[in-house]
Amino acid sequence: MENNKIIKGFSKLGKDSKIEKITSFLHHPQAGIDLLRSFWHENTEVQKLLDEFSENTVTNYFFPYGVVPNVMINNEVLIVPMVIEESSVVAAAANSARFWSERGGFHSQVISTTKVGQVHFIWEGDDAVLKQCFPELRRLMLEHTKPITSNMEKRGGGILDIKLLNKRDEIPGYYQILAYFDTRDAMGANFINTCLEEFAEVLKAHLDMNPMYGGFECQVIMSILSNYTPDCLVETWVECPVSDLKGVDEITPEEFVDKFSKAVRISQIDIYRATTHNKGIFNGIDAIALATGNDFRAIEACGHAYAARSGSYQGLTSLELKNNVFKYTLKIPIALGSVGGLTKLHPLAKFSLELMGNPDAEKLMMISSTIGMANNFSALKSLVTKGIQKGHMKMHLLNILNNFNATDKEKEQAIEYFKIHKVSNKSVSNFLGQLRKIHEFQTLPT
Amino acid sequence: MENNKIIKGFSKLGKDSKIEKITSFLHHPQAGIDLLRSFWHENTEVQKLLDEFSENTVTNYFFPYGVVPNVMINNEVLIVPMVIEESSVVAAAANSARFWSERGGFHSQVISTTKVGQVHFIWEGDDAVLKQCFPELRRLMLEHTKPITSNMEKRGGGILDIKLLNKRDEIPGYYQILAYFDTRDAMGANFINTCLEEFAEVLKAHLDMNPMYGGFECQVIMSILSNYTPDCLVETWVECPVSDLKGVDEITPEEFVDKFSKAVRISQIDIYRATTHNKGIFNGIDAIALATGNDFRAIEACGHAYAARSGSYQGLTSLELKNNVFKYTLKIPIALGSVGGLTKLHPLAKFSLELMGNPDAEKLMMISSTIGMANNFSALKSLVTKGIQKGHMKMHLLNILNNFNATDKEKEQAIEYFKIHKVSNKSVSNFLGQLRKIHEFQTLPT
Repeated sequence: MENNKIIKGFSKLGKDSKIEKITSFLHHPQAGIDLLRSFWHENTEVQKLLDEFSENTVTNYFFPYGVVPNVMINNEVLIVPMVIEESSVVAAAANSARFWSERGGFHSQVISTTKVGQVHFIWEGDDAVLKQCFPELRRLMLEHTKPITSNMEKRGGGILDIKLLNKRDEIPGYYQILAYFDTRDAMGANFINTCLEEFAEVLKAHLDMNPMYGGFECQVIMSILSNYTPDCLVETWVECPVSDLKGVDEITPEEFVDKFSKAVRISQIDIYRATTHNKGIFNGIDAIALATGNDFRAIEACGHAYAARSGSYQGLTSLELKNNVFKYTLKIPIALGSVGGLTKLHPLAKFSLELMGNPDAEKLMMISSTIGMANNFSALKSLVTKGIQKGHMKMHLLNILNNFNATDKEKEQAIEYFKIHKVSNKSVSNFLGQLRKIHEFQTLPT
Repeated sequence: MENNKIIKGFSKLGKDSKIEKITSFLHHPQAGIDLLRSFWHENTEVQKLLDEFSENTVTNYFFPYGVVPNVMINNEVLIVPMVIEESSVVAAAANSARFWSERGGFHSQVISTTKVGQVHFIWEGDDAVLKQCFPELRRLMLEHTKPITSNMEKRGGGILDIKLLNKRDEIPGYYQILAYFDTRDAMGANFINTCLEEFAEVLKAHLDMNPMYGGFECQVIMSILSNYTPDCLVETWVECPVSDLKGVDEITPEEFVDKFSKAVRISQIDIYRATTHNKGIFNGIDAIALATGNDFRAIEACGHAYAARSGSYQGLTSLELKNNVFKYTLKIPIALGSVGGLTKLHPLAKFSLELMGNPDAEKLMMISSTIGMANNFSALKSLVTKGIQKGHMKMHLLNILNNFNATDKEKEQAIEYFKIHKVSNKSVSNFLGQLRKIHEFQTLPT
């Protein structure tokens, strides 16, 4: 056991000492130190800010920051930033955005922005008493959270409702406080959690101390927001006459719609396909979450749990064909913020929001779901026509060439050659091998 | 409608022209240009490489890159990199890693690494004939993919099995080819998709052309890997005598275990709690996926769909208490790669792998699930004892201070003050207000 690697007090070290410590285990410590430093921001103030976002930070990880023009949502045209490491996702979104900008654009509406939190507790007393006294407990909870909620209320948000749920059938003595919040343009995690912990204190104090509850101790298990926000919902769709879908990769509009509708149907009945179908939607949504300093794990967890709400995990989109009109809809819960957290603190998150005209949270939900739908549509369009590999591998060609350390000259020749040839790791390797053999031959001493 | 914002031929522009174009819509175009450029890597070669990962790239988004020491997995101690924008996640993982390093560490084993892909097709011919002839079709598919699979086979991987599934009950004429792959240390997406598109060509050619199939046309809907890989599974656990759980935030080991086990049980019966429980697991897993150039959307989609496999969405961990031993387990599918994609191409992904001793894919699955479990344990430990806000808000304090443009001196005083006071946006605002009032008073001209 390499117990020599146990490091005590690491978090207390300065950044340079942390870097020295972790690179000391590498074959070339100095190369590691130089590499980490080369990714620091040139401005020490900015770097300090970035360092303070998280803990034990030693450098920044760089993700490609791309932009998608021509995103038409509810008749407004936007330029949307995407942060993603996967090749061809930005190209697919841009392709889709351009395609729909010529067919009326994307349409989107927010259904609700309600967020949720819970206090879980165990109490073995008389259920009827608790139920009867709950309005009073509720009043006390609201009263005790006034200092926390006053600012949020000024902005039009606050606590929407507090419910008591009896779950004793499932776990002995188990109850829930289920609370609903409006956090306006903030993601609101800290606000919700602070309210919930206050609720729990009020609850415990009263159940434990007030004799009317019979002296049964209230055991608070935990107080925490839920990332499952099925009501924080946005609906985005595209629609056009079927005949306007002509010119899609050399198949007729009717054939395209036939295959597309079967592909959507399959995503609704098969978990293997549904997972990948939804993954493509999140390619787009997460890229905007990342670009705006939002928490993509929260959005992912909620969206996928929502996809399973019927009892089987399904694709999140649906297709309607009526009177020869093609209407394709994505309905998805997305809890995010356009203020608070890192949104205005990270210089690039701030820039991303500016680029989109500083949207509020509702508009950001519409933009995110639009790009999710754009990516999904583009993926399905490729899948049911020419297949995914052709386009994707062309996009991936530069990565493959970089893997083989191709020179700029070789890249140029490869891009030309692979305009009509199939891209794969092997075919690129073969092509470069040939090229280098020819080059070797040409430069032999005569 | 702002149609003047429709930009044609954007992808063909050079990087500088792209930046000029998108910033031209801002109030201060030059400030935008300067900002984007300030996030470029100092080395133009490195920057070019990063630009080529994706499309329409204009700069890099910086994420804090932190490290977690003292991660003991199967008796080996590792330093693990985490890339995440959320404060307190790295601190939580580090806390958990240290805690368990003194109690035998984490234990982990990979159950399987099988990956999956599908060809979806419609065929209205005689099912019995197709079923009977499938072994021959299967042989042809394997034969035609030989040029693609030969390299993978040399490394010990390849196609494991090809099945035909009749789904005509669900959609008229609908069949699936469900294929299983071993892609060794690669994520394998391109390999799988290339094989599947070849399967589809073989299938269509034979069903359409061979008279024995009765002349019914095969309509291939799509050929694509599935991100749902329930067999690509890793199991990670911690265990120790209950009595070793003493000293956890001033409660007895028995009380801690009682509350912890109820918290786990709640995550198994309540979707609101399950979603957040699993979100915490993915905080850790995604941070490593990001740090190593892996596709976190694929991992998220699979993990959450897997969490819903029983028909209700549940927490991914389980607790066993037997003979006074506490055993806490996370079982989760994680499909990732330690070669291919960006893993060796992104200088920091490469560094991340070096830092962990260049793990193969199986070891990286174990490390990822370990950090997922570390984050989950830490979150539950806080939740059932002091609550999440106390620790989290302390971590978040610097972000709040930065939001209020606190000076270094003010930060120092705030950190001291909030050692014993409750952190919230409002309390920090009040504190700074007081501080600044005092300062103003002290600097008044006398």
